[in-house]
Amino acid sequence: MRTPEAIRKFVRVFSELPGIGPRQATRLAFHVIHKGSGNQMEMAKAIADFKNIKICKRCFYIHENQNGLCDICADMKRNQKVIAVVEKETDLMSLENTAKFNGRYLILGDLRRTGILEADQNLRLKNLKNFIKEELGGKAEEIIIAINPNTYGDLNAALVAKELEGFALKLTRLGRGIPTGGEIEFADEDTLISALERRV
Amino acid sequence: MRTPEAIRKFVRVFSELPGIGPRQATRLAFHVIHKGSGNQMEMAKAIADFKNIKICKRCFYIHENQNGLCDICADMKRNQKVIAVVEKETDLMSLENTAKFNGRYLILGDLRRTGILEADQNLRLKNLKNFIKEELGGKAEEIIIAINPNTYGDLNAALVAKELEGFALKLTRLGRGIPTGGEIEFADEDTLISALERRV
Repeated sequence: MRTPEAIRKFVRVFSELPGIGPRQATRLAFHVIHKGSGNQMEMAKAIADFKNIKICKRCFYIHENQNGLCDICADMKRNQKVIAVVEKETDLMSLENTAKFNGRYLILGDLRRTGILEADQNLRLKNLKNFIKEELGGKAEEIIIAINPNTYGDLNAALVAKELEGFALKLTRLGRGIPTGGEIEFADEDTLISALERRV
Repeated sequence: MRTPEAIRKFVRVFSELPGIGPRQATRLAFHVIHKGSGNQMEMAKAIADFKNIKICKRCFYIHENQNGLCDICADMKRNQKVIAVVEKETDLMSLENTAKFNGRYLILGDLRRTGILEADQNLRLKNLKNFIKEELGGKAEEIIIAINPNTYGDLNAALVAKELEGFALKLTRLGRGIPTGGEIEFADEDTLISALERRV
């Protein structure tokens, strides 16, 4: 017996999503079927509504505004001279959740493990450099390279730092140490070394 | 900064799916946004198309036919007197993939770990018993209880067996032993005992 076409189509489309394989997609299909058509319409609409989402021309975050800028880049109360360079939108969201950062962002997009930046990522950095030249008179106050502190992240952060050299008065990375709630006993050696070196 | 409404709506709807939490749903949202509107429409349609899916009145599998029966129950070449009782649609699909079973099925739906069957599951068993009475003259040739061979599965299988007692000439469960490709060294004790007892 062949699997019904509706299921096969769902599995084909949804198993392309990150973290979802054909097996989970099949289970999801039956789950969604049993949820009923009201729920299905809600799910379909949630996806279809993404058509109104635009990408900010300055930081590459998403928005639904008319002026091409996201809420952060359009916010005059935020300091456009302090820029956090992040990899993913979700990194931006985590930093925003702290409510302790009042600058703007540049989203690079998923970084590879090859030690080279993608063409698109170089374009985004160039876009930032042009912004700094034209709007900030050549130097930002500070650029925070907020890329994950792991082996590949460090490599990519070094590449980004090299690209942005001379474009900011201060070029920093996020502090490293023992996370709040963490335990010294279970911290890895590199983290402990950072915590010792950067003791306050 | 508030997360755009479109993202929040997507996360709200998709984090209700099994195995997908709010964090993965957020990542999926950005992934889907970057896939572009063609892809989004395809995904939305794959879900919306589920509205045509119906549930078989005999075995409770899905179908898109007009007569209320799924392809298996409607197939006159299949032996309606041999019935495999399974928990999930995906179990049915796995058994179908073997191409070695020519009977029909009864899908019970997700079994609980409480040692009692849900009202809906009792109804489905009653439906099967009526079918056996009315269509098969009171006794099926064989009922295979194809429920997972673990602690709760065994408990539920016993409940189902009790319900179906007297309704089949043979009431069986799937064979247990070392899976093909498995290693004796790593087989657990219960599996090895089954393999010894059922040696061929």
